[in-house]
Formats: sequence, C-alpha cells, structure tokens
Amino acid sequence: MDLTPLRSYAESLDSQDPLASFRARFVIADPQLIYLDGNSLGRMTLASQARAQHLLDQEWGRDLIRGWNDNWWEAPVRVGEKIAQLVGAAAGQVIACDTVSINLFKLSASALALCSGRTRIVTDTLNFPSDLYILQGLVRMLGNRHVILRIGSQDGDITPDLGALAAAIDENTALVTLSHVTFKSGYLYDMAAVTEIAHRKGALVLWDLSHSAGALPVGLDACNADFAIGCTYKYLNGGPGAPAFLYVRKELQEQVFSPICGWWGQNAPFAFGLDYTPAPGMRRFLTGSQPILSLLAMEAALDPVLEAGMLALRAKSVRLSEYLINLSDVLLVPLGFSLGSPRSADQRGSHISLRHKEGYRINRALIEQMQLLPDFREPDNLRLGLTPLYTSFGEVWEGVDRIRRVVEEKRYAQYPLDRLTVT
Amino acid sequence: MDLTPLRSYAESLDSQDPLASFRARFVIADPQLIYLDGNSLGRMTLASQARAQHLLDQEWGRDLIRGWNDNWWEAPVRVGEKIAQLVGAAAGQVIACDTVSINLFKLSASALALCSGRTRIVTDTLNFPSDLYILQGLVRMLGNRHVILRIGSQDGDITPDLGALAAAIDENTALVTLSHVTFKSGYLYDMAAVTEIAHRKGALVLWDLSHSAGALPVGLDACNADFAIGCTYKYLNGGPGAPAFLYVRKELQEQVFSPICGWWGQNAPFAFGLDYTPAPGMRRFLTGSQPILSLLAMEAALDPVLEAGMLALRAKSVRLSEYLINLSDVLLVPLGFSLGSPRSADQRGSHISLRHKEGYRINRALIEQMQLLPDFREPDNLRLGLTPLYTSFGEVWEGVDRIRRVVEEKRYAQYPLDRLTVT
Repeated sequence: MDLTPLRSYAESLDSQDPLASFRARFVIADPQLIYLDGNSLGRMTLASQARAQHLLDQEWGRDLIRGWNDNWWEAPVRVGEKIAQLVGAAAGQVIACDTVSINLFKLSASALALCSGRTRIVTDTLNFPSDLYILQGLVRMLGNRHVILRIGSQDGDITPDLGALAAAIDENTALVTLSHVTFKSGYLYDMAAVTEIAHRKGALVLWDLSHSAGALPVGLDACNADFAIGCTYKYLNGGPGAPAFLYVRKELQEQVFSPICGWWGQNAPFAFGLDYTPAPGMRRFLTGSQPILSLLAMEAALDPVLEAGMLALRAKSVRLSEYLINLSDVLLVPLGFSLGSPRSADQRGSHISLRHKEGYRINRALIEQMQLLPDFREPDNLRLGLTPLYTSFGEVWEGVDRIRRVVEEKRYAQYPLDRLTVT
Repeated sequence: MDLTPLRSYAESLDSQDPLASFRARFVIADPQLIYLDGNSLGRMTLASQARAQHLLDQEWGRDLIRGWNDNWWEAPVRVGEKIAQLVGAAAGQVIACDTVSINLFKLSASALALCSGRTRIVTDTLNFPSDLYILQGLVRMLGNRHVILRIGSQDGDITPDLGALAAAIDENTALVTLSHVTFKSGYLYDMAAVTEIAHRKGALVLWDLSHSAGALPVGLDACNADFAIGCTYKYLNGGPGAPAFLYVRKELQEQVFSPICGWWGQNAPFAFGLDYTPAPGMRRFLTGSQPILSLLAMEAALDPVLEAGMLALRAKSVRLSEYLINLSDVLLVPLGFSLGSPRSADQRGSHISLRHKEGYRINRALIEQMQLLPDFREPDNLRLGLTPLYTSFGEVWEGVDRIRRVVEEKRYAQYPLDRLTVT
C-alpha cells in the first residue's frame, strides 16, 4: 500500500490546526519521540518549568517563610478558580488540594452523611479501580452499613449498560459515582442524563473528571452535578502527582462536613483555637499544608489550557481521534487490532484504546525499540492519549505507522509473555 | 552594658562548632537576614534545588511517563526508609506520603478500629490544634461514640500536667496522641515514659514528630511507640508543604486496615482488579499519586541531616538553645520578656518561645524593619527556631540583639494592635 497520501493528510491537518502554535509552549526534549501518553502524564510546559525555578530561587530560597503570605497560602483557592473555568463551574466551588483518592474519600463520606437514611452506593466496573477501593474502605470504616452496587461485567466492557445503571439507582441510593470518561475504553458518560436520573431518585452524584478535565468541555453547573473530583497531571499537564481538585455545588457546601478536618479548613487557622469550626465555602475541604512546589508548577500549566479554550481543544481532540481511528481501520485492524473505544465521538474522551492479543508485548516493543510511548492496560489494551494542546496529526500518523511496523515485523516476539510492572 | 564579650563568645562557639560546615550546603540568599523560623519552614539545601532542577529538565521534561518506573514510584518507600533512620525506626516501618493531618486521620482511625471496645481518646491542649481538629472530625464521622479528653488549660501552659495525663489514661482508653515536642512552648515529652503508662492500660500511642524529626534523636522502636506521624518541611528542610511521613510498629502493620484505600496501597496496583486487597507492610498506608516534585526535593534534603547525625545535631541544638536563653536572661528579660519554654534542655525541643505582652507588634517590627524572621504564636509568643544544621551562634547573637533594639527603641509602637494574618 502506498502510505504517502495518509502521511500527507496529516501534514495538511497540521497546517490547518488553529492550536498548532501551543506545542511551542511545551518542552519537547526529543523530537523523535512520539508521546501518546499525555492521559497518564502530560508533557511539561515551559511555564511550569519557569514557575518551579522561580519558586526555588526567589521564593523558598530567598523569601523563606514569607512565601506563605505572598503567594502560597491562597494557592488552593486561586488554582481551584482556574480549574473551575475548565470544568463549567461558577466561582467558589472548586479547590485544589490533596489527591484524587483523598478527595473522593472526603466527598463520598460527606455524601453518605448527607443521605444518612440511604445505604446504596452505585458505581460501575469501568470506574478507575482506585475509586472503587476508596468506596470499599469507606464502607468498611462506617461499619459495613452500606452496599456498593457495581454495574457491568468483571472486565472488557467498552460501554456501560445504561439501562442496568438506571435500574440500580433507587430510593435507597445515597450516592452515584462514576468516571466521567472511563480510564480504559475512554467511554464518555452523558453527565446531564445520569445526574438527572439520580436526582429523580433523590441520590447525590459525584463525578471523577480525571480523564475529562482539560480534554473536553465539562458542564458541572449546567448538569447540576453535586460533587466532582479530578486530577491535574493528565490533560492539565500539572506534573507527576500534582495535587488534585474537588468541586462541591454551592448549595451543598454549608450542609457538608468534611470528615478530615485540618487547620487549613478551619475558620480562623491562625487563632490556633482548640475546637474546629469549618471555614465558610470550599476552604472547609482543605486539610493540611499542600505541596507548594508541585501545586504552583501545576498552576502555571493551566494558563495555556485556559487560553486555548475547551471548545477549541475538544474540536481538535475529536479530529485527532477520528484520524487515529481511520488510520487504525486501514492499517492496524488487518493486523489483528480492534477498536477498544466507542466509535462515536459523542461517547468518547480524548484517548483511544486499541486491543490486540499481543498488546502487552507490542507495548514493550514500541517503548523499547520504536521511540513511541503509549501505555498498556490489562488485558489487551494499547491506550493512546491525544492531548489537543500538543499532540500533532503528524505524531498520530507516525505513531500508528510505528505500531504497524512492530506488528508486521513481529518486533514484539522477542519479549517474554509474563508481565513486568509498567505504570 | 558592653556587649562585645557576648558577641565574641558567639564567634568562639562558631569556631568550635563541628557542624559549622553544613551551613554551606544551604542556599543563603541574603547574608544579612537572620532566619530563626526553620521550625516553620527549613531553609533550602543546594541538593533540593539541584534535585528539583534535574527532575524538571531530565525526568519530567525528557523521560516523561518513564520517570515513574525509574525513580518515582518507589519514592515513598525509599524516602520513608531514610526518615526511619532519623526517628529510631528499623527498616520497613516508615513511609513518606500525604500530609500530617491525613496521616493522623489514617492512623487514629486505624487505632480506634484496633481498640474497638474502648471509647476514650487522650490528648492535651499543647497539641497542635490541627491534630485536635482531625480527632474531632474522626469522632464525628464515627458517630460520636468516642470522647476526646484534652488535658491542660485552655491556653498558656508551658509544660503539661503529667499527673493529670497519667490519671486520664484508663482501661477505656483506645488512643493517646500527643505532639512529641509541642508547637508553642517547645516542651519535649518523655516518649518512653508516656508510652509505657499508656501500654500499661492497654491503650495505643501515636506521636506527632513534626517538631522533633530532624531536631533531636527520636527512639520510636526503643520506646515501643505504636504509631507516629511527622512533617518534613521544618527541621528536615523538605520545602513548603513537602509530603509528610508515618510510622507503624512492625507487629501492628498486618492487623491494621487504613480507612483510605487507594491503588497505591493495593497489593497489585497494575492488575487493576476491582476489589481492594491491602499491600503487605507499610504500602497499605499509601493512597494515591504523590506530588513527585515536592517529594523528591524533600528526599534530597535528608542527606545532610543523615550525614550530620542526630546526636551531633542535638548537641549543637542544646548549645544554641542554652546560649539563646542566657542572652535572653541578660538582655531581654529586663525589657519585659519571659521564657515561654522549659528551662531544662531535657524538656525542650529545638525552638525557644519568648513571651512579651507586645509580642505581636515586636514580631512585625523584626520582620519589617530588622531583617529578622522569627514567628509569632498567640497570644504573646515570639517563637525562635534553632536549626542546628545551619543556624550559627552568630545568628543567635545577632537575633537577640535585634530584638533588644526593637524593644529599647520602641520600634514596634508604630504598628496597630489588631492582628494581620501571618503564618
């Protein structure tokens, strides 16, 4: 097959890309490396690098403790307001802190306390396992009075059974919690529809935005979501393990008592009073001192996302995804791949899973021989993240072509079948 | 008074200081600035600065997701083992993660679950308020079945009432939790004695080491402590909000179920199984992704502490403190100051509180006019942190002399009496 027209098409798509210039805002240390794992760890912006540098040299190094007054103490609120603009939340509802897991613990405990007469928690098997673990630990801590209902089969679903989900949400349901975009197949839930179904039964809804924040427009306020959590090191490019965020709908904030009460969430933290009184608004969801180096490097990475705008980013993400799926249909499906993500863009986030029975070894070959970084998720998913802020159509072309060569040339065959630990 | 001999004495102490060379391992951006707040935020080591730089340029920027395999994933365990050496813990009992508050929540919840037949929690009014808040939130979450007994008066105690403490610990006590060194007066608890009293009644003991780790030798194993938590941004110089640590005695680890169960604490995190099984050992106390930039900058700061050794650090800390108290007796007590810390070194950590009715305004004057950074704690404590790794005797002299001048020259009188928010 003559591949020239496919490659040329990528060039023409890049030349028409209104967001192409944003790639220059990122450190591209190795231009030969094709990076399709921004859904695990986003690339580093020049702004984050400079911000961290300034923090070290001018703030921690020179201002010392005074840095807290000047810039650091307010960072969770300030950063939260920036993220709010990316997830469709009016001011005063998002704060940046802690980790996704801890924020899920805080908010699901809060939700169960708000709906104390109800004992059912509804989620699905497509949810990120860590979210399920947090729910399990919480239920155990609360004396196993709650039951977690997990919709879906044990493994391998690409899309959820929406009928079963709706049927599971009943008058005894306290909380429905799902990943807005699922981590394996990239399935995108209809946030408005599911939230409405839950609200009709009087249940609260908590969305995990880890794979959607920065990847597509999210309308938390418009969908009447109650709670949300999300991470910042994927499509928001915040850096490895950068602090997470959480959202609580305005009307719920004063009713909610977060179970992890630290001095950062205290009404008057510097009075050092001995009894806890929650701060008004979102501050009550803070606990202790936040990792400022990670937090401020992350803050700087938000600006390019805000500048590009979520609508433009989504438009490019869909174009990148459609191009990748088309290339896969032509070049990879004949080699044994199948699409592990929904075919309709309306049901998809910004990563594409390609399934292949040799997926694990193909992934290794790509990393070790081909200068391509995808990632692999059990049992057979090669997961390709498309970050519209810096992924080019040329990279998508080159990535698919390298996958093709690995399989055609059986470059994976040299690896053992047993798994190594790969993140 | 001729102050020359007092100043000369500082010079002779510095010239005999076996740890004097460690000061060169720190960034000293402004040699005129006297920094006596290392108990709030330690100075930045050159090593932390270089480590963060490397992480940005070579790891996040170049290795991208591969950084997780090479170096980052194991960091909580690796860093925990370094801290273990500083707090008297054999290997396999300390892990670095999250914040002090969150670690206290995890461990006190674990302790209450282990002692499920008992309902009393004993602490004191000298404890850091955030620790009290965490306990209050936990008790509320668990349905107010527990009672927190808080030994001491509402405010102003320098030392605790040890008799009252011992009397409060009874057969119904699940947990005794205290700050090893208290944040305001710097009182140092006898860890072995209190732990033994608690154990005699069958209670578990949790020590907050935030003001002792890196400041003095801690013997967690030798004292049979059950649990400990601590922060790394004070005497360990980890950087603003750097991740905290926690300790669980070996024999307890497999009995304990941490309530916040994330994938980092899961037995096989990359199998992405849907049911939580805790990892063996300390990993089960991990939750989600840690802030790597903050964590690794902190790791680098531990090396000089390990090199200096806790015995040598303690010896210098005591010498610094005694010198400061002597200077204060001669120069500051006549100006209305009183010692807000125990006079005996055996009962003291590595900071000294000096009380003065104008403490708040004196603190402001020192910061804004005198290039001296202490800190202030309500109602009247000027708190002076002495970090033996970099504080010199000359700085102590100069610090006390600047305090003297502020009061003698009434430089504080220009400030209003109402408080600003100062961290």
